[in-house]
Amino acid sequence: MNYGIVIRVLGNLLLFKAASLLLPLAVAIIDQGPDVRAFLLSMTITAVVALAMRQAPRVRGDLRVRDALLIVVFGWFLVSSFGALPFVLSGSIPSWIDAFFESVSGLTTTGATILDDIEPLASGVLFWRSFLHWLGGMGILVLALAILPMAGVGGFHIFRAESPGPISDKLVPKLKDTAKILYTSYLGLTVFQVILLLLGGMSLYDALIHTFGTVGTGGFSSYNDSIGAFDSSYIRLVISFFMVAAGVNFSLYYALYQGNWRRVVRSDELKLYLGIVLTATVLITLSLQGHVVGSLWIRFQHALFQVSSFVTTTGYTTVDYEQWPAFAQAVLFFLMFVGGSAGSTAGGIKVVRWLVAGKIIRHEMRKILHPRAYSSLHVNGRPIAAETINTVVAFLFLYGLLFLGGSLLIALLEQTDILSAASSAAATLGNIGPGFGIVGPEETYSHFSHASNLLLAMLMLLGRLELFTFFLLFTPNFWRQ
Amino acid sequence: MNYGIVIRVLGNLLLFKAASLLLPLAVAIIDQGPDVRAFLLSMTITAVVALAMRQAPRVRGDLRVRDALLIVVFGWFLVSSFGALPFVLSGSIPSWIDAFFESVSGLTTTGATILDDIEPLASGVLFWRSFLHWLGGMGILVLALAILPMAGVGGFHIFRAESPGPISDKLVPKLKDTAKILYTSYLGLTVFQVILLLLGGMSLYDALIHTFGTVGTGGFSSYNDSIGAFDSSYIRLVISFFMVAAGVNFSLYYALYQGNWRRVVRSDELKLYLGIVLTATVLITLSLQGHVVGSLWIRFQHALFQVSSFVTTTGYTTVDYEQWPAFAQAVLFFLMFVGGSAGSTAGGIKVVRWLVAGKIIRHEMRKILHPRAYSSLHVNGRPIAAETINTVVAFLFLYGLLFLGGSLLIALLEQTDILSAASSAAATLGNIGPGFGIVGPEETYSHFSHASNLLLAMLMLLGRLELFTFFLLFTPNFWRQ
Repeated sequence: MNYGIVIRVLGNLLLFKAASLLLPLAVAIIDQGPDVRAFLLSMTITAVVALAMRQAPRVRGDLRVRDALLIVVFGWFLVSSFGALPFVLSGSIPSWIDAFFESVSGLTTTGATILDDIEPLASGVLFWRSFLHWLGGMGILVLALAILPMAGVGGFHIFRAESPGPISDKLVPKLKDTAKILYTSYLGLTVFQVILLLLGGMSLYDALIHTFGTVGTGGFSSYNDSIGAFDSSYIRLVISFFMVAAGVNFSLYYALYQGNWRRVVRSDELKLYLGIVLTATVLITLSLQGHVVGSLWIRFQHALFQVSSFVTTTGYTTVDYEQWPAFAQAVLFFLMFVGGSAGSTAGGIKVVRWLVAGKIIRHEMRKILHPRAYSSLHVNGRPIAAETINTVVAFLFLYGLLFLGGSLLIALLEQTDILSAASSAAATLGNIGPGFGIVGPEETYSHFSHASNLLLAMLMLLGRLELFTFFLLFTPNFWRQ
Repeated sequence: MNYGIVIRVLGNLLLFKAASLLLPLAVAIIDQGPDVRAFLLSMTITAVVALAMRQAPRVRGDLRVRDALLIVVFGWFLVSSFGALPFVLSGSIPSWIDAFFESVSGLTTTGATILDDIEPLASGVLFWRSFLHWLGGMGILVLALAILPMAGVGGFHIFRAESPGPISDKLVPKLKDTAKILYTSYLGLTVFQVILLLLGGMSLYDALIHTFGTVGTGGFSSYNDSIGAFDSSYIRLVISFFMVAAGVNFSLYYALYQGNWRRVVRSDELKLYLGIVLTATVLITLSLQGHVVGSLWIRFQHALFQVSSFVTTTGYTTVDYEQWPAFAQAVLFFLMFVGGSAGSTAGGIKVVRWLVAGKIIRHEMRKILHPRAYSSLHVNGRPIAAETINTVVAFLFLYGLLFLGGSLLIALLEQTDILSAASSAAATLGNIGPGFGIVGPEETYSHFSHASNLLLAMLMLLGRLELFTFFLLFTPNFWRQ
């Protein structure tokens, strides 16, 4: 392990994090809030630690896979820890563990909160809480693009199959340029949504907060009723649209920008993703007939909103969907295991993995009927490597195992019902936020014990870092030289 | 498709089924029950149809994979349908659909019942109901050994890895001898359990009924309170032991008989299977502290009993486990997805498949840390073929998909809660019987609509026939010449 480089890189990351506090500080100053001091103090502490870490000895040698994994996991852990500073120092969340939970939930774009009443919070603190989503969304794009594929994990590398050769697996030859394209898309979505929300009559502050929560697929709001606070068809539709848009593989936006329509049309993942959103919306809209008051158009809006929110792992809500019929709830529950597309800010399992799973089933069935026929698995019109298939399969099994273990531990720690335990594990591992039962849309995570909160924070990080990255650190093999 | 042979084979199967009615007929005659006429009539109808089917033209040609699949699926369907005759003709279950459900549940060794009160039923009818379990258990052994591996599906063929060459993948060279060994084991377990239950003070009738339910991993009892009707530590322990024994790969009994201890000790599946039973039992025993009245020893017995019952997909109960703490319930819920060992009478997913899934995860993690290292997956000390891994993976995904679809349809048809919908789908697909909520240990399947009953019967057959066999018939590819 090259600890010198690891510590220096982490120092740089923290310095960037300290700088990012300037934005909520500005909000606090403009609003003349009581949280100005907390932000100044947080920035100072973070910057001092960051500068100290940058003094680590410069050791010669390459950055290896292990070092990269260490940087990723500790990077997210450190930024989450220091991200909790403003919550504690401002007195908004007195407990360190609760503040850490909230910060992890923000950065991992989960959106699970331990705050029962967020509306009295200082504007800077609320802004920082949502801004963590936006930063986390950006962070996950770097991960998906640059670091996870290095280790052969992550969803994005499935798209290697997209391009003809083994080298040109990035959208454009240079990694830096690829990152620039992704950030442009991310920034573009952000600006576009802010403008549309402003046109809908939202204040700039609310528009920013809800845009951060949407494009980062996070789900933190500045209102206790989440998007239910805005009783507006326009706002529901705009946010639904951007949730779905944030769950699309960002490289397709570049393809679109280049006029490469063929690549967009040929994307199996996009088709399946939109197909799931559409099918689930129609099914729920129909099942709400007679259960929910309002016209078909209103029912459609709520169905679309909740489906988009669950599929993309955002977690915004417009209504208490636990009042919906069992079928609609069951659809939402299972959507918790879908996730958006690879290479998007959405968390969870990701559609492309299910696509591969589906192809494996079909492939095996053909094999039974035609044992001697030769065939291979294709995604987006190109064959997928056996190695990639193995990684996808291992990911799905590990996800199931972690969901199972998480559910059992929560059931043990909280003595709750099975559905509550299962959905709190699914909602955190999948970076969604709300679930069912004790973590339903009308509830928060404030009832949980500190032990459970730490466990759930761990699940959020596990899910966000695509399992393996995080999980590997707990294997003895990782630490063996 | 060679329909001539298919129909003739099915005719033979029905003839065997008609003969098997002799046993419940004998019970009815001895008991001078009102059901003698029903059994005579059922035998006559079945025999006439069987003899008619045997007149199908003898067509020359080989039996191909498609023909075999057709025989398996229609065979189970026909025997289930004719197995329902005594229920309807005796007036015990007036509705044809309900009787079909009960018969499928018996033959697939599920043990889900639509009867709210079984105790007033005629003894011959109750005997037949349980005897269906025993026949089904025998049927599944033929399937696992002879027919499913032909099509490359089923759990047993994973054990090919056990033997050195591709030919000697059976325990002994000839299929007929292998079958004989399995039946000897099955019969041995049956006789042994009946004797032990008799020694515990059970009547011969009760001993037979509960042995059929145990060694077939079915779960039908002659009492409404299931095994709870016998408030005896001895009976609980004997039945627990035989449930676990029925979930062991039967080929290991032959190895034991041959004195081949090494093969038994080296069986990864056996170790994992017993490990799961033990771990779950200890965890539940501990969690029952303070929740269930009785000594540690009594708590252990109930925990062991319920764990064995769920793992082996039997479905017997001694207590209302829905009164247990959430953690214990969550453990039982997840055990619904374990299943016994391959090559046993247990249904469900089977431990060996999870073993392969676990190995895939470990393999991938090693691959990330050592991208260039060569390694292969081993089970029971021998490498497994890539083809086998693919089949296992496809099975697990298809199982998940069917569980999901089944749960959603039940939620839609019954407007029930998510847990009830999910556990009724899991309990039928996994051939378990009871579950949670509306299918809890104190409930039956009598509340369900006929549409749901047919759907659940379909899930039982799907699960019992290892998914692919049944599922393939619904693909257009299957019927294409």
